[in-house]
Amino acid sequence: MSSATVRVERDGGWLHATLNRPKRRNAMSLEMVDALMDVFATVEQDPTVRAVVLRGEGGHFCSGGDLADMQAAAGEHATHGDPIARLNRRFGTMLQRVDGCRAAVVAVCEGGVMGGGFGLACVADVTLAVQDARFRLPETSLGITPAQIAPFLVQRLGLSQARRLAVTGQTLGADEALRLGLVHEVCAVDDVSDRLQSILDRIRRCEPGAVAATKALMNRVAARELDDILDDAALEFATLARKPEAATGMMAMLSRSTPPWAES
Amino acid sequence: MSSATVRVERDGGWLHATLNRPKRRNAMSLEMVDALMDVFATVEQDPTVRAVVLRGEGGHFCSGGDLADMQAAAGEHATHGDPIARLNRRFGTMLQRVDGCRAAVVAVCEGGVMGGGFGLACVADVTLAVQDARFRLPETSLGITPAQIAPFLVQRLGLSQARRLAVTGQTLGADEALRLGLVHEVCAVDDVSDRLQSILDRIRRCEPGAVAATKALMNRVAARELDDILDDAALEFATLARKPEAATGMMAMLSRSTPPWAES
Amino acid sequence: MSSATVRVERDGGWLHATLNRPKRRNAMSLEMVDALMDVFATVEQDPTVRAVVLRGEGGHFCSGGDLADMQAAAGEHATHGDPIARLNRRFGTMLQRVDGCRAAVVAVCEGGVMGGGFGLACVADVTLAVQDARFRLPETSLGITPAQIAPFLVQRLGLSQARRLAVTGQTLGADEALRLGLVHEVCAVDDVSDRLQSILDRIRRCEPGAVAATKALMNRVAARELDDILDDAALEFATLARKPEAATGMMAMLSRSTPPWAES
Repeated sequence: MSSATVRVERDGGWLHATLNRPKRRNAMSLEMVDALMDVFATVEQDPTVRAVVLRGEGGHFCSGGDLADMQAAAGEHATHGDPIARLNRRFGTMLQRVDGCRAAVVAVCEGGVMGGGFGLACVADVTLAVQDARFRLPETSLGITPAQIAPFLVQRLGLSQARRLAVTGQTLGADEALRLGLVHEVCAVDDVSDRLQSILDRIRRCEPGAVAATKALMNRVAARELDDILDDAALEFATLARKPEAATGMMAMLSRSTPPWAES
Repeated sequence: MSSATVRVERDGGWLHATLNRPKRRNAMSLEMVDALMDVFATVEQDPTVRAVVLRGEGGHFCSGGDLADMQAAAGEHATHGDPIARLNRRFGTMLQRVDGCRAAVVAVCEGGVMGGGFGLACVADVTLAVQDARFRLPETSLGITPAQIAPFLVQRLGLSQARRLAVTGQTLGADEALRLGLVHEVCAVDDVSDRLQSILDRIRRCEPGAVAATKALMNRVAARELDDILDDAALEFATLARKPEAATGMMAMLSRSTPPWAES
Repeated sequence: MSSATVRVERDGGWLHATLNRPKRRNAMSLEMVDALMDVFATVEQDPTVRAVVLRGEGGHFCSGGDLADMQAAAGEHATHGDPIARLNRRFGTMLQRVDGCRAAVVAVCEGGVMGGGFGLACVADVTLAVQDARFRLPETSLGITPAQIAPFLVQRLGLSQARRLAVTGQTLGADEALRLGLVHEVCAVDDVSDRLQSILDRIRRCEPGAVAATKALMNRVAARELDDILDDAALEFATLARKPEAATGMMAMLSRSTPPWAES
């Protein structure tokens, strides 16, 4: 099941899926999105997988969407709708699959957990943050929105904290992320393996069919009409992404300069 | 109003309802569910009751549903729908009554607060945990789901924490329960009476009609379409409860042995 | 834009709106509600305003609704519906405007933050509490309900904490308010200016159009059908406000005596 961007290892009932673009701090490329979708599609069909462990190679979880893909989509000839919206929506579909996964999903968050990576952390059943983790929503500072992750942010953090973090772009450390309920546990760098093992030991005690039924029940209770929201968000994302402000924001990020709106 | 399973004592505007099966750690039998429904039906008709105080006899709040009732229901001849679903749904109706109670509801949680007891703690207006309290959702480890309590768990803890606790079966202490908002206050064993008194003193200052109107308004804002969810959850519960995994899970719990899915 | 009850000062992209009835601890009069609505209507039309800073003059944020207005409305001849309901609903409309504001909204909460002031604190994107701040919902102790602020309380705090605070009238300090997510940051009295500046510096880095789009998206995700709820709540408020209990409650507050329901 391994691919160029996601390394997959099976260990009994556990499936370890590791984002594997360490030089790009595991930026979420379209290829990676598709690889993750394949992993979770397989898990859905294989009842012997009891838990999926998501982690990033090289000390970072995920630095967010890969801007190169967005630039490519911006240049694509639009035949069936806006290619940026399609690209964006696909990321949301992947998050929906993780969120709705039959098996337990554990995310181990180290280093940078940004944008889309922040969203991925929000859909795991158990999110473990290592002390050095840093969480941030950089979208508004780039002139775009956290479009596909917005429903998952609001679900995880409540409207108040989700809106605040998007409006201010504030960086959260691991302890603050624990306080806000973004993550469920925090551990020292040296304790990651032990802590992950104890989480998996607890999951092992729970009957897999009951876990799947309970997750489905609770997701239904929370009753998010995700599809419509995500469709609209993708279109809006594309609109913003095509504005000059977004080009300026991304250029400023790449050149490490200050965009005009941030000058005092 | 007292019955074999719930002791009821009146003290001015306060009604103390004490779960009274200490030898079974106040396991929630069908008889106890019905007794609680009677108590809350009476309270609804009696505006002189200003608050109901829920507590467990013998140092534990409630160890969850009584498996004996479920075994009896499993053997019953099904005439109008699945008897397990009917039994399960009745527990949900009781929780709805407590949740919608006109008067203030205060729960004092000591010792074990498991499954259905955990759900009961989630519908009180003020939940006070004593330092020794331990909260747990054991359902998935038994091969069943926290069916009727799921909406109340999601309401109280948010989807993220509710799903995590159900998927992992993790035990929470009093301080962790406070941090997650499962309980509102924590006190030392020796301070329970004083702390309860100060909660009741605050409730006394609030005008009863305004309390009832405010509770109804806020419940309406939260707008949970509880009936449909609880009906469905009861049917699913019955389906799972009739599977061999559930029989295995409960047998393992009774014999304190390890069910097959928990073997490493 | 300044008026008798709200002082407005422009500083580059920041608009400082200061509630200015210090002798009444900035009680929210109808005049003040209308002044705030004007401020936010102007902000909606002026894209050069990047953030609105809400604060109270004289060491208090806001002591809640002005009872004098309610007494005046109670005496008004009712031509188009109940004048108390109309007054109450107008406050809700103002909160909706602040909640839906295109620009970032920062609230600086000092001293008393009561009733309607508590509600106003709940709709800001970033709420900064000074150590001396005290938050309280006094409505039920007055025989009325936190009618127009209920949806915003439930959104901000969750049903459980919102219901508890309304049912008990409990006072929260700044640290407790932080723990419950009512506020996002707490600082010492001497640090208010620095802390506010650092919040504004973070907002400055975010592109204004993206901030507006993100706020709108997240508000839509949270999907509160506010208008119907607020309409109903206003009518109920008027009904309660016209009952003798409300008259008794307000009289007791003004004369600092104990209302009959609070006698032990």
